[in-house]
Amino acid sequence: MGNITTVKVRYKETDQMGVVYYGNYFTWFEVGRNEFFRKLKSSYEELEVENILLPVIKTGCEYLVPAKFDDEICIDTQLVKLKGVRIELRYKIYREKDNTLLAKGFTEHVFVDKNLKPINFRKKHKDIWNELQGMIE
Amino acid sequence: MGNITTVKVRYKETDQMGVVYYGNYFTWFEVGRNEFFRKLKSSYEELEVENILLPVIKTGCEYLVPAKFDDEICIDTQLVKLKGVRIELRYKIYREKDNTLLAKGFTEHVFVDKNLKPINFRKKHKDIWNELQGMIE
Amino acid sequence: MGNITTVKVRYKETDQMGVVYYGNYFTWFEVGRNEFFRKLKSSYEELEVENILLPVIKTGCEYLVPAKFDDEICIDTQLVKLKGVRIELRYKIYREKDNTLLAKGFTEHVFVDKNLKPINFRKKHKDIWNELQGMIE
Amino acid sequence: MGNITTVKVRYKETDQMGVVYYGNYFTWFEVGRNEFFRKLKSSYEELEVENILLPVIKTGCEYLVPAKFDDEICIDTQLVKLKGVRIELRYKIYREKDNTLLAKGFTEHVFVDKNLKPINFRKKHKDIWNELQGMIE
Repeated sequence: MGNITTVKVRYKETDQMGVVYYGNYFTWFEVGRNEFFRKLKSSYEELEVENILLPVIKTGCEYLVPAKFDDEICIDTQLVKLKGVRIELRYKIYREKDNTLLAKGFTEHVFVDKNLKPINFRKKHKDIWNELQGMIE
Repeated sequence: MGNITTVKVRYKETDQMGVVYYGNYFTWFEVGRNEFFRKLKSSYEELEVENILLPVIKTGCEYLVPAKFDDEICIDTQLVKLKGVRIELRYKIYREKDNTLLAKGFTEHVFVDKNLKPINFRKKHKDIWNELQGMIE
Repeated sequence: MGNITTVKVRYKETDQMGVVYYGNYFTWFEVGRNEFFRKLKSSYEELEVENILLPVIKTGCEYLVPAKFDDEICIDTQLVKLKGVRIELRYKIYREKDNTLLAKGFTEHVFVDKNLKPINFRKKHKDIWNELQGMIE
Repeated sequence: MGNITTVKVRYKETDQMGVVYYGNYFTWFEVGRNEFFRKLKSSYEELEVENILLPVIKTGCEYLVPAKFDDEICIDTQLVKLKGVRIELRYKIYREKDNTLLAKGFTEHVFVDKNLKPINFRKKHKDIWNELQGMIE
C-alpha cells in the first residue's frame, strides 16, 4: 500500500480514439509523485529552498484497460528503490468505481541541483533520506 | 500577409469529439509567434541573452471549422499593435489543402525581464522596436 | 457565485517561464464546465445517451497574476447566456490560499449532435433548458 | 536507419525545469509513428477506411540529454517486431544541430477495430503486412 491520489479524467486528456491518450498517464504519475513527496514528515520545503530537482531518467508504462473521460482515477505511488543519487517509484492506476487496474508504470530519477548537476542526496539531506528509506516497499 | 508557419495536427491534439481540442489552438499561436520573432532581421538573440520574455496578458480565439488529425495547418501571424510595453499579434489558422479558414485569434503581451517586471522595450531595444514598427499591419 | 471546482497545478502545466502556460487555463475552464453540468439536477445522462456535445465556438482569457506549480486553484464557473442553440459561460480562476484572482475568461458553445450538427436544445431538452435558465447570472 | 521526422520544440512542451517535460517525448514518438505509416507504399487509407487503430499497450523511454525550447528534433522510427496482432516500434530522439542522442524509447501496439477489439492484421491486410514485414530492422 503506497500513497493514493485521485484525479478525474479531463476532456483534454482524451484523444479521438475516445480514451485517454497514452502519453497522459505520465502526467498522472507526476501528480502521484508530487503528492507522495508532499506527505513526507521531514521538511520537503528544505528541498525546494535548495532547488533540488528530480528529473526522470527512465520511465515506462503498461496499459491494461483504457481510462475514459470523467473516470475517477486512483494513482497508487510506491517508493521501490533508493540508492546513491537515484530513486525509483512505481505507480498503479485504478478506476475508482470498480477498482479495475488500468495501467502500471515506473519512473527512475536522479537527484540534481538547479544546474541539473547530480548531488549526493543521502549525504546532503540525511533526514529525508532516512524517512524515504523507511518507506521502500 | 503575415508570416506563415505550418504544423501537422498530432493525434495528441485531438479529443474524443474527433477534432482538435479548443485549448490546443493557443499552442499553434505560440508556434507562429516564435517563428515570427525568429525571422526578425535585428538580433533576436540580444533579447534572449537579456532574458526578455513576452508573457500573454490577454488572448482569444474564434473557431469556425474544426481541425482534424493529420491536417496540414498554416498559421498566419501578424503584428497589429506595438506601444510602450505592449505588443499585440493576430493569428489565422488555415487548413492547407483547401485554404479553409479554421480559426482566428489574438494574443496581447507585455515585455518583461526575467523577474517578470515590465520593461520599456522601445527604449531598451530600439533596433528591434523599429523593425517591429515597420511590420505592423 | 457560481460553481466552484478546485484543481492543483501540475508540473506538466508549467513552462520554462516558471508559471502555468497560457493555453492551459482553457483546460481548467473545461474542468469547471464539466463539473457545472454534472451538478445539474435534471438528467445530464440524458444528454450523454443522446450524444449531445458542446463544442466551443469562441473563447478568451485575461491573465492577471500567474499561477504557479502546486498552487491550489479555484475555478468559479457561471452561466451567463442561454439562447436558441447557444450557451455562454464565464470563469474566474482564483489562487485558493489568498483568494487572489489570477485570470478570467469565457467560452461560447453551440449545442450539437454527434455529427456536429446544431440542435435546438430548448425544444429537445426542455427540463435541462429550464433548469439552466434559472441559473443564469 | 529508420524513418526520420523532424519537429521543433514548442514553448508549451517545456516545464519549469527549463527542459522538455518527460511525458512529451511520447507525443514525438507518436508523430514519428504516424509519419512512418504514412510513408508505406501499400494503401494506408485502406486501414483508415476500415478504422483500424493501433492503441499502445506498452511503452518506455530513457532520457540521456534534455531537449530544450526551440531545438530542432529528429525522430528516428524503426519497426522492430511484427507478429499476430502485435507490432513494436523503436524511436531515437536526436538534436539536429549536433546529432546528439537525447532519448530512446519504444511502443508496443495491438491492431484493433473501431470497437477496440483485436484483429488478425496479417490475415486481413496481407499487402500492408508484407510491406511491414520487409521493413523490420
